[in-house]
Amino acid sequence: MIIVVSPNATPEDLDIIVRQVEESGRQAHLSVGTERSIIGVIGPDMPELQDMFESLPHVESVHRVTKPYKLVSREFRATPTVIDVGYGVSIGGTELAIMAGPCSIENEDHMMDSARGVRAAGANILRGGAYKPRTSPYAFRGLGVEGLEYLANAGRAMGMPVITELMSVRDIDEVARYADIIQIGARNMQNFMLLDEVGKVRKPVMVKRALSGQIEEWLLAAEYIMAQGNPNVILCERGIRTFETAYRNTFDINAIPLVKELSHLPVIADPSHGTGKQGLVIPVAMGAIAAGADGLMIEVHNNPERALSDGAQSLTYERFAGMMRSVAGVAAAVERTVPGVGASAAAR
Amino acid sequence: MIIVVSPNATPEDLDIIVRQVEESGRQAHLSVGTERSIIGVIGPDMPELQDMFESLPHVESVHRVTKPYKLVSREFRATPTVIDVGYGVSIGGTELAIMAGPCSIENEDHMMDSARGVRAAGANILRGGAYKPRTSPYAFRGLGVEGLEYLANAGRAMGMPVITELMSVRDIDEVARYADIIQIGARNMQNFMLLDEVGKVRKPVMVKRALSGQIEEWLLAAEYIMAQGNPNVILCERGIRTFETAYRNTFDINAIPLVKELSHLPVIADPSHGTGKQGLVIPVAMGAIAAGADGLMIEVHNNPERALSDGAQSLTYERFAGMMRSVAGVAAAVERTVPGVGASAAAR
Amino acid sequence: MIIVVSPNATPEDLDIIVRQVEESGRQAHLSVGTERSIIGVIGPDMPELQDMFESLPHVESVHRVTKPYKLVSREFRATPTVIDVGYGVSIGGTELAIMAGPCSIENEDHMMDSARGVRAAGANILRGGAYKPRTSPYAFRGLGVEGLEYLANAGRAMGMPVITELMSVRDIDEVARYADIIQIGARNMQNFMLLDEVGKVRKPVMVKRALSGQIEEWLLAAEYIMAQGNPNVILCERGIRTFETAYRNTFDINAIPLVKELSHLPVIADPSHGTGKQGLVIPVAMGAIAAGADGLMIEVHNNPERALSDGAQSLTYERFAGMMRSVAGVAAAVERTVPGVGASAAAR
Amino acid sequence: MIIVVSPNATPEDLDIIVRQVEESGRQAHLSVGTERSIIGVIGPDMPELQDMFESLPHVESVHRVTKPYKLVSREFRATPTVIDVGYGVSIGGTELAIMAGPCSIENEDHMMDSARGVRAAGANILRGGAYKPRTSPYAFRGLGVEGLEYLANAGRAMGMPVITELMSVRDIDEVARYADIIQIGARNMQNFMLLDEVGKVRKPVMVKRALSGQIEEWLLAAEYIMAQGNPNVILCERGIRTFETAYRNTFDINAIPLVKELSHLPVIADPSHGTGKQGLVIPVAMGAIAAGADGLMIEVHNNPERALSDGAQSLTYERFAGMMRSVAGVAAAVERTVPGVGASAAAR
Repeated sequence: MIIVVSPNATPEDLDIIVRQVEESGRQAHLSVGTERSIIGVIGPDMPELQDMFESLPHVESVHRVTKPYKLVSREFRATPTVIDVGYGVSIGGTELAIMAGPCSIENEDHMMDSARGVRAAGANILRGGAYKPRTSPYAFRGLGVEGLEYLANAGRAMGMPVITELMSVRDIDEVARYADIIQIGARNMQNFMLLDEVGKVRKPVMVKRALSGQIEEWLLAAEYIMAQGNPNVILCERGIRTFETAYRNTFDINAIPLVKELSHLPVIADPSHGTGKQGLVIPVAMGAIAAGADGLMIEVHNNPERALSDGAQSLTYERFAGMMRSVAGVAAAVERTVPGVGASAAAR
Repeated sequence: MIIVVSPNATPEDLDIIVRQVEESGRQAHLSVGTERSIIGVIGPDMPELQDMFESLPHVESVHRVTKPYKLVSREFRATPTVIDVGYGVSIGGTELAIMAGPCSIENEDHMMDSARGVRAAGANILRGGAYKPRTSPYAFRGLGVEGLEYLANAGRAMGMPVITELMSVRDIDEVARYADIIQIGARNMQNFMLLDEVGKVRKPVMVKRALSGQIEEWLLAAEYIMAQGNPNVILCERGIRTFETAYRNTFDINAIPLVKELSHLPVIADPSHGTGKQGLVIPVAMGAIAAGADGLMIEVHNNPERALSDGAQSLTYERFAGMMRSVAGVAAAVERTVPGVGASAAAR
Repeated sequence: MIIVVSPNATPEDLDIIVRQVEESGRQAHLSVGTERSIIGVIGPDMPELQDMFESLPHVESVHRVTKPYKLVSREFRATPTVIDVGYGVSIGGTELAIMAGPCSIENEDHMMDSARGVRAAGANILRGGAYKPRTSPYAFRGLGVEGLEYLANAGRAMGMPVITELMSVRDIDEVARYADIIQIGARNMQNFMLLDEVGKVRKPVMVKRALSGQIEEWLLAAEYIMAQGNPNVILCERGIRTFETAYRNTFDINAIPLVKELSHLPVIADPSHGTGKQGLVIPVAMGAIAAGADGLMIEVHNNPERALSDGAQSLTYERFAGMMRSVAGVAAAVERTVPGVGASAAAR
Repeated sequence: MIIVVSPNATPEDLDIIVRQVEESGRQAHLSVGTERSIIGVIGPDMPELQDMFESLPHVESVHRVTKPYKLVSREFRATPTVIDVGYGVSIGGTELAIMAGPCSIENEDHMMDSARGVRAAGANILRGGAYKPRTSPYAFRGLGVEGLEYLANAGRAMGMPVITELMSVRDIDEVARYADIIQIGARNMQNFMLLDEVGKVRKPVMVKRALSGQIEEWLLAAEYIMAQGNPNVILCERGIRTFETAYRNTFDINAIPLVKELSHLPVIADPSHGTGKQGLVIPVAMGAIAAGADGLMIEVHNNPERALSDGAQSLTYERFAGMMRSVAGVAAAVERTVPGVGASAAAR
């Protein structure tokens, strides 16, 4: 950390600041300037310290120079993490991870039909929500454990790993039993208790970026999980909240290459939530892959106008299959592959 | 809801939309225009329905005309809710609620000393954090149950109700035992499971607005709690996240009068988090009271530069006492009172 | 400026950076750390330099430590600037500046009637738009010079200085002839040519903050004007653009005390644009005064539903008079006064 | 427009609203509901009208159902506009427009060298700034007319059309004389006088989106130009301002397909400003092309650490040439081409 001292500080004022730095267990390196003096703080940047130093008299500003996260960083691990999620599928390698399925699990038949539909079009991971975060207490909140069973059965039948959202520590055992990947939703990105708990589980965890989550906060959410001993963390960019009202969220494409630069963890793009509009899902999916994303999460519904949630952003099977063909071309241009025709043929 | 149909829709297309509306259990009222046709949907606006209708072919836009919340609204209850929080203090009446204390509970002596300090300066509710939401897993996370005890003891000694944050369903029994008011933090405003659970408790609950929480979402968070049977909900504006980097958060003063207009629930202002800078806390506190807030939540620390968290925004006892004098003048101008000289004299 | 060098830089790499700093005419002060080295750049922080240093190899981050503005800062002038705007009215002193009138000047009678109405209720400065910035090319764009005449006549008749917006260098002579204060609108806050030109005029200039203008950019806009020799600059906070859709803009109350701390220039609050909703104007006006604003700019229209622009946020004469009474109480609490009953009585 | 009337309105209240609608020259179509009544307003949605209706008593909300722009819309012109910008280059066709060059024109040799460098790597349009919008009045503001000459000469020598920014009506004749495409910068997107004036010129105009410009406002800026008779308008997405501080701006990829859907005008992506970081420019450029952009605007400098502005986001010739190869692959996947090796070979 670097502490910039205001011009009117006396040598005694400087001395007080230096002493505080030393009491915090850090070394202080003072550079007295003609206008402003600067104190370099030697030792790890701790979150509390910036705050503490900022409140000292005569301190003008405090600048952090080291990153607050460690385990998720490229300095900690230079090579990309590739995560095996079962059924021969891995995330972060050359083949893209294509997670697809309905927003909510609606019933057993529908789930099985969805699995067949997305599998045939080339998805390699099945998604479906059994616990739904809903802005209103009066909205459909998901089938719970029953839904988890339908999802797991459909995944098994099609030979695909499944991903589903965990919303509460209360349900962690159930979700960990049925899911191959546990999803932490955007609204829980800073539910720190939940992050701690999924850090103790041995299943891969995908952390969605919060609606107003800064990149650093998002990486720190992943750090929470890794700090508890779970190295299998996947990040998911799903759009941020901005002033623009023409779409539900603004997909942040900058985040893809930046996170790949800062961290070794794989990054998935969710253009369904990232746009909230059917018509934008495919071009934004293509853009995300071109920019380096390791995969996609797409809401697919055989009959979007009857979906129990998020119909406005769901693709039909046909449009999803079309998306897969378009994405395949872009993937080739960036030396990635989409899950194979072979696999999908096998599933038919 | 109102469905606007695109100009190129045929009578058959319109018919399909009308039928979907009817299948959803609503009545459709069709107005065929020269350019666009409009379908009025008669019956309550359900969150899922907008989404479903938006995904129908030829639907251009869907406009909600009723509010998605009920119990929190002025239509449901025209007169302001006043909540008794114990020790003769209530929130939402003529006397302002002044919640003050340290961000984190640090130890027994410090908590007692803080209680005495803020009480003497005129606070009528004691705050202190035993469970701290921290962006980094490596930061101080609070004393837990031990801290709750120190807080409750200090409150009892000074004759003040206490407020503290609940972060997880796991800790609800402990927090409900010690706290007079349970705080839901900004990062948990959409932790829907937690909202459900505090709705089942009989203690008053204060819901902070999320960093990017829209007014409607915030009121729906309160609706979650009321829908479970707990009518004692307090709202707290604590600043939102914007593009401005000159302060930690941007205190949204517009929210105060708007929420008072839309809802009967009391609204507290937190200028400590709403600004993140000591120098702005007092003027923004005064502004919030002038705009109609029912009280303040202020971080106070005898020694901000040694606070274990949020030192940069904490006031000393002296500055807090100065704030109380300034706020008293503004309060008088809006026909409110600050907790009395009598009470504070008694505490000395 | 402080340059933080990445951990993997060699002594030769450091040397190259040091040499670049010296070539830029600054001195470099190198502190070699165990993990990262830091280079203090001694000499004024120039806007180009940060950018240049950031693009050097092995530079991790560059931190500015001095403010980029000078003439507008408290360091340059410690005491508040008070600006005489004619007719015995000044801005920045104990008496608040209350600017009121219609959004658009509609016709001669309406302007005169408006002047009488706002004067009677206690306004001391008359506002009215002759050139209107309109999002759509098909909207009413103002009466131009004809409107300026109506405004100036109405101001003269009521003995009030007038303020109006200048949108283009082309109209500067006309506007400067008729106006006592020239307004630079939010959309022109970074129209740098226009800022230069009003800097050469001898009339006071009020600069509104841009929809997404950061505090520093806003102060630099004022610096543009002062740098050309015009010291009479007034700032106006009029709400910023955020994710919240419940109001047209979000009034940023934090900006009031922060700008008063950083700068000696007076600050006016515009709660009409800052909220965009009639029902919020009065409480936010009261809040802004309590937080230290030097005055208000309020849209007033005898018949808001027939206003040619911004009717939704205009107050009637009656509500404006009520606002003046409410503001008077708050003003007293912060040792300010509202323009007198005497003046308004004289105008009747 | 649709007017939603509040539940407590009497038949007389409804009558007053209906009469106001009719006085505005529109027809009113009243649907009396059990809870709320709704008035359909038949006739074009004018910007003033929404505002006027919102301020009527008992009006709860007003919803616009038609778009406020016409000439720029797909309804007005279904097929994409292709704009010939000289030297055989056009924008909006199969071949991508690749605009490249330095942020600021620095001197004659540097400009010529830049033109040669970017031409060799495959650019087909040359960019360079002679008038620079600078946040600080003390920063380098460009060479003015002298710079325009260097740019035009360099373009002519390399057989490339040139684009440069116009900041003020004052300079319109000079800029129109030298430039093949006139750029309106982000800070001038709502400088309506400037938009009017470039609408009267016969040169193509590229309008950058403002830092907080909503899609609708951006399209209306283009409408201003078309309404004056200039049909040759190009849009440019250059990143928006959000809460994220990890990059200078957030490139809004959603805007690309949405604008292509709403409008027939071509859209260029500027990932240099859209990210502000060298390391992100190439992946975001690839993403933008994959999502459907008609071209790119890239800052290129032979020596970024010595650029007079925006060095941090400039690519060297080598990296720009690498970008062109990467973009070529993505372009092929979306059936677009990059300007040919043939052309660049010819220029050597």
